Amino acid sequence: MSEHRAVEKSENLDHFWAVIPAGGAGTRLWPLSRQGSPKFLHDLTGNGRTLIQATYDRLAPLAADRMLVVTGRAHRDEVVAQLPELGADAVVAEPSARESMAAIGLAAALLEARDPDAVMGSFAADHVITETHAFRAATATAVEAARAGWLVTIGIEPTHPATGFGYINVGAAVDGVAGAFEVREFVEKPSVEVAAAYVEAGYRWNAGMFVVRPGVLLDLLAEQDPVFTAALRGIAADPSTLAAVWPTLPRIAVDHAVAEPAAAAGRVAVVPGTFGWDDVGDFASLRTLLGGDDPVTVLGDRELVRTVDADGLVVPHGGRMVAVVGLRDVVVVDTGDALLVTTLERAQDVRAIVAALKQDGHGHLT
Amino acid sequence: MSEHRAVEKSENLDHFWAVIPAGGAGTRLWPLSRQGSPKFLHDLTGNGRTLIQATYDRLAPLAADRMLVVTGRAHRDEVVAQLPELGADAVVAEPSARESMAAIGLAAALLEARDPDAVMGSFAADHVITETHAFRAATATAVEAARAGWLVTIGIEPTHPATGFGYINVGAAVDGVAGAFEVREFVEKPSVEVAAAYVEAGYRWNAGMFVVRPGVLLDLLAEQDPVFTAALRGIAADPSTLAAVWPTLPRIAVDHAVAEPAAAAGRVAVVPGTFGWDDVGDFASLRTLLGGDDPVTVLGDRELVRTVDADGLVVPHGGRMVAVVGLRDVVVVDTGDALLVTTLERAQDVRAIVAALKQDGHGHLT
Repeated sequence: MSEHRAVEKSENLDHFWAVIPAGGAGTRLWPLSRQGSPKFLHDLTGNGRTLIQATYDRLAPLAADRMLVVTGRAHRDEVVAQLPELGADAVVAEPSARESMAAIGLAAALLEARDPDAVMGSFAADHVITETHAFRAATATAVEAARAGWLVTIGIEPTHPATGFGYINVGAAVDGVAGAFEVREFVEKPSVEVAAAYVEAGYRWNAGMFVVRPGVLLDLLAEQDPVFTAALRGIAADPSTLAAVWPTLPRIAVDHAVAEPAAAAGRVAVVPGTFGWDDVGDFASLRTLLGGDDPVTVLGDRELVRTVDADGLVVPHGGRMVAVVGLRDVVVVDTGDALLVTTLERAQDVRAIVAALKQDGHGHLT
Repeated sequence: MSEHRAVEKSENLDHFWAVIPAGGAGTRLWPLSRQGSPKFLHDLTGNGRTLIQATYDRLAPLAADRMLVVTGRAHRDEVVAQLPELGADAVVAEPSARESMAAIGLAAALLEARDPDAVMGSFAADHVITETHAFRAATATAVEAARAGWLVTIGIEPTHPATGFGYINVGAAVDGVAGAFEVREFVEKPSVEVAAAYVEAGYRWNAGMFVVRPGVLLDLLAEQDPVFTAALRGIAADPSTLAAVWPTLPRIAVDHAVAEPAAAAGRVAVVPGTFGWDDVGDFASLRTLLGGDDPVTVLGDRELVRTVDADGLVVPHGGRMVAVVGLRDVVVVDTGDALLVTTLERAQDVRAIVAALKQDGHGHLT
């Protein structure tokens, strides 16, 4: 017990605030993930904790009492219920979805006003990270670089030439911060050939993690869009204006609004992370993530699954018996009101079903 | 109306009794068909009538008031509910399952006692027949041959070299009955090569349809097993002995007990049928049966099915949305408490799932 406390104490980072943007519908994980119950609210690893709970667990040793979750109004109550450790005022409800710059920028403005020495780290609520000590060590390094004025990201070591992520071109070491490097450029999701070249050249995956002093982030934004920054600082100064001002904010990702131009200006650093990371983008990545030696990976009650000569992923969340015979790389996701049958290879195309359901009047299922 | 009546009247066959054995669990149609609710109780063609109701409909013009259903005790009430046109005493409940000779033999003994001029025709409750007028015409010819003392079967014209059915070797024309031929031999389910040779040689599928005078059937049985015949006639003479005698009867199919030895003795005739017939043995044959031009055949509410780049069979009987993406020849059968995902090719192997469920304590789902 005393040792555990000692570890926690040693990992605590003074004035470090963990910001958890909890958004996104997770369309490619339908019917498990829904608009009304997105993937961060689900236990996708089968360890008994939802993704947002696991995100909290991972960050608590660094910033136990300094957390801010930014989520949609519709999910606020469920987030509070899942994270009773948080004070209710640690959950900020967006009046509507307006992309990541508005969400993270609002957190920055609130923290800038609350703690002049704050460093914030923004980590999505719906990613899965293994080797959490390595994650926290990388974050500690990133905080050190952020205190020196950098906008810092954590670059994930690629395990394969993924085409679903952006990449980070890693430059020279940052003076005075061991383990941090300048970012030459953020590059968009590549083709398979380009991805292989990136991996070969030592590029890192861009996991969308940003560690920065709130004022630095807002000032970088102001260089691109001073009105946006002023609006965010205005909300922080008078939170009663949130509902009125929010709908006027631009819909733009933090990458485009700040990170890419700042990198071009030589003001972004990257801390290479050596931990396992996955954004659980679709059922194929969920299956890889869950791993295991069985031909059929089960997320849920294995007693509900019977297979003959089959492999793939089965999610028996409907409480019914699921039998699979003679199929390779199959994906079966059973829920109370909808069932998906596809393959690992076609896992991305689940979006087409969701789009069709929305169009033909079955949006309540999406 | 008057024309309809005229047709009915012209099709009626005096003293012809339709016997409908309603047994079999339909294991290969799990989870649609269950022990407690076998396939004859289900509408498998999507036309609003269950298989046993369709069997009744098909036979009613020939034998409206002369029907006998022989079924398991567990299914008696449901059969009576589905066929209110039948008098309750037209449904005979077997105390336990004892194969087809006992079921058909009991019907024969009951009819022998009831109507000295009876000809009975036995037609399974769970087969699907198209072109019902051709079926009834063939049956009328079979009845004519049966009155002349033959054990008569109806031979189905093969549409392909099926390996799942027995075949009938068709011999010379029967004197005095146009359209009937002697049966040289019944042969067991063949290999694919042998089946092709059978089809080439003009063999017919054995659909297990038998038309015969009850006394002829019982006398043929007596030649093989006089005790069996005596037991059946004893039950008919005193129905109160049914429960005591039934468990002592041999478990044997009518084909082995009577039809094969009678054919060897030159006493079986076949009437070639030109109608469509299917025993709906598995989901592949169900899909063929349902046909249609759509890549995905749906048995049930098509509104519940969404597909992208898929073909096969979907049965959305669970009331939930079923989405299929990127699978060929897939079979998805969704019910309230169990779900099956397989392929048309592996449809037969569903038996292995049912066997496993029985073994591991989930027999209530089978």
